[in-house]
Amino acid sequence: MGLLEKTIDCIGELDIPAMEQARKRQDELTKPPGSLGRLEELSIQVAGITGNPRPRIDHKAIFVMAGDHGIASEGVSLYPQDVTQQMVQNILSGGAGINVLSRHGGIRVVMTDLGIREPLPVHEGMYVKRIDPGTRNMAKGPAMTRQEAVRSVEAGIEVFEAELVKGLSLSGTGDMGIGNTTASSAITAAITGKAVKEVTGRGTGLSDAQFSMKVKIIEQVLELNKPNPNDGLDVLSKVGGFEIGGIAGVILAAAAHRIPVVIDGFISGAAALIAAVICPKSKAFMIAAHKSVESGHGHILSFLGLSPLLTFNMRLGEGTGAALGIPIVEAAVKILNEMSTFAEAHVSEAL
Amino acid sequence: MGLLEKTIDCIGELDIPAMEQARKRQDELTKPPGSLGRLEELSIQVAGITGNPRPRIDHKAIFVMAGDHGIASEGVSLYPQDVTQQMVQNILSGGAGINVLSRHGGIRVVMTDLGIREPLPVHEGMYVKRIDPGTRNMAKGPAMTRQEAVRSVEAGIEVFEAELVKGLSLSGTGDMGIGNTTASSAITAAITGKAVKEVTGRGTGLSDAQFSMKVKIIEQVLELNKPNPNDGLDVLSKVGGFEIGGIAGVILAAAAHRIPVVIDGFISGAAALIAAVICPKSKAFMIAAHKSVESGHGHILSFLGLSPLLTFNMRLGEGTGAALGIPIVEAAVKILNEMSTFAEAHVSEAL
Repeated sequence: MGLLEKTIDCIGELDIPAMEQARKRQDELTKPPGSLGRLEELSIQVAGITGNPRPRIDHKAIFVMAGDHGIASEGVSLYPQDVTQQMVQNILSGGAGINVLSRHGGIRVVMTDLGIREPLPVHEGMYVKRIDPGTRNMAKGPAMTRQEAVRSVEAGIEVFEAELVKGLSLSGTGDMGIGNTTASSAITAAITGKAVKEVTGRGTGLSDAQFSMKVKIIEQVLELNKPNPNDGLDVLSKVGGFEIGGIAGVILAAAAHRIPVVIDGFISGAAALIAAVICPKSKAFMIAAHKSVESGHGHILSFLGLSPLLTFNMRLGEGTGAALGIPIVEAAVKILNEMSTFAEAHVSEAL
Repeated sequence: MGLLEKTIDCIGELDIPAMEQARKRQDELTKPPGSLGRLEELSIQVAGITGNPRPRIDHKAIFVMAGDHGIASEGVSLYPQDVTQQMVQNILSGGAGINVLSRHGGIRVVMTDLGIREPLPVHEGMYVKRIDPGTRNMAKGPAMTRQEAVRSVEAGIEVFEAELVKGLSLSGTGDMGIGNTTASSAITAAITGKAVKEVTGRGTGLSDAQFSMKVKIIEQVLELNKPNPNDGLDVLSKVGGFEIGGIAGVILAAAAHRIPVVIDGFISGAAALIAAVICPKSKAFMIAAHKSVESGHGHILSFLGLSPLLTFNMRLGEGTGAALGIPIVEAAVKILNEMSTFAEAHVSEAL
C-alpha cells in the first residue's frame, strides 16, 4: 500500500465526545452562552479534530507549495513565468506578503518546490520535491501523468510528516505558481459542474478581452481532457498542477494526523476540492481562512460546505489568507483554555 | 474652554498626501496591485490617520469602560446588576474573554470605573472616574444630567491621555455594564431614526416575551425623554450610560491625537454614534472591528459608513471584537512597512 492509500486509510471522523466536552466548557465560561459565536464553534471543531476537549496550539506552520504551469505559455497571466521562481526566492528571503503575515502570527513558513521551471540553489528553508520543470500545457493534453499526480500528493504528505517532528498543532496552506488560477478554475468547473465563466476570475488582473480568452482556453482544456469529477487524481493529472497536488497532500496528511488545516484562497481551495473527492472525510478537518475575490472560490466553499473566516477582497495567494486565519483559530482555542468559569471567577449566572 | 471642546477643536482631517504615498508604496510591493484588498485599504487609512506614510504600531491598548444602569431595575437583562462589578473584577484578574484575546494580540487592557454600583478596592490596573453609582432609571427621567454626560466623556479623554505617555499607537474600545444594550438601542433609535424594534436585540439572551417588554420599555424611555438626535450630549444624558460616555471620550481623544481607534460591537458602536454627532470628523479615525449579532449594530455601521472587519456572530462586548480586529490592523501596517518592493526583490512586474 502506497503512502497516499495509507494516509487516506488513517483519516477518521471528528471526535464527538471531545466536542461535547468542549461545548459544555464553553457554556461554563464567564460570558453569556454562545456570545463568542464563531470563536466558540472553531474551538469545538478543533476539539473534534484533535480529540482533545482542551486542545493547545503550540506550533503553527503554513506549507507554501510552488510549481510552474505549461498553460502559462498560452498567455493566461499578466506576469512572466519567471515570476514563480523569483517569488519563491522572495519568500525564502523573507520579503513576501506571506512572510510578513506569518512573522506577525508566529507561524513558520515551509516552502516546497514541486516543479518550478528553473530550480533554485539548495536552501535550508525549502524542500525540493520536483516532479518535473513545470506541468505540460494542458491545452494540448494532460498536465501530468496519473503517476505524477500521485507523486505530487505524496510529496505534500512527506513534507507535512517531516515537519511534524518539529512540532505542529495548527497548519495552513499556500501556493505560488504563475498560471495556477487557470488550473484552479478548470478543477473547480470539473468538480463542481459549474460553467467555466462562473468559476473564472481575473487572476492577477486581466482585462475583459484577456478574461474572455482565459475562459475560452479553460473550456477547450476541459473539452480536450475530459477529467472525471469523481476521481480526484484524474482531475489533478489532467487539469491540475504539481503545487496543487502538493497542497492536496498537505490537507490529507493534516486530516490523517488530526491537525486542523486552514485553507487559503482559490488555489488552495481547488486543492481542497481534490482532497475532498479523494477522501470526503477530509472535509471535517478543514477551516476556510477567507473568501477570495476570485469568483470560483465562492463555489468551492459552497461545495465543501465551508464558511470563510474573512472576506477581505484578497487574491494574492501564497497562504496570505491562511496566515490571517491561523491567529483567529488560535484565539478561539485560547478562549476555551484560558477563560475563567463562572465558578472560578465568582460571577453570578443568568437569572 | 473645557477639555471636551479643546479635544473636538484638535480633530482634523485625514492626511491625504500621506495616504497617497502609502497607496503608491502598496503598488510597488511584490504582489499584484490591490491583491491584498482590505489590508491595503486599512494601511492607507492608518497612514491618513497618523499622517505617516509608513506608520508603525508599537503599543496597543483597549479601553474597557464600566458603569451601571438604573434601567436594569426594569428587568431588561437576564443577569443581576452585581455582574457588572463581578465582571470588572474578573477582567482585573485576567480571566475574562477580553483578557484572553488581548494577551493573544499583545494588547494592554485599560479598565476604568465610570460608575459601577458598588466601588471595588483600588487596583493598579483600573482608573477610577466614578460619576455616580450607576445612572438613574431612564424609564422615569433622564439617565444623567448634561453636566454628568460631559464629565463621562471627559473622563474617557483623560484616561486616553494618561495612557498616551506609556506609548499608544493603536487603540480599541470595550464596555462592561449590565443593561447597556438597552441604553445602546435607545441611543441608536434616537440618532439613526430607526424604529426601536429594528435596533433592539436579545442582549445576553432574552426570550420572545422579555424581548417585547424590552422594546416597549425603550419606546417609553424615548417618548418620555425626547433626546435631540442632533445633540450628542443630550442623547447621552437622557438615554445613555456613563461607560458609553467614556467610550465616546476615548474615540474623540483618539481622533484628536491621530491614533486609529478600533470600535468594538454594539455598545461601542452606540458610543461612536454619540462621538460622530458631537464631532462628525471623528468618523474618519474609526475602524469597525466586527458586526455584532445585535440587530441595531448593522444600522449603526451603515449610519457611520463603516465596514466591519469580522462577522463572527459575537455579542459579548468587553472589547472582544476590538481585540480580534487590532491584530488585523497591525498586520495591514506591517504589510506596508515590511514587504519587499519589486525592485528590492528583483521580481519582474506585470507585462
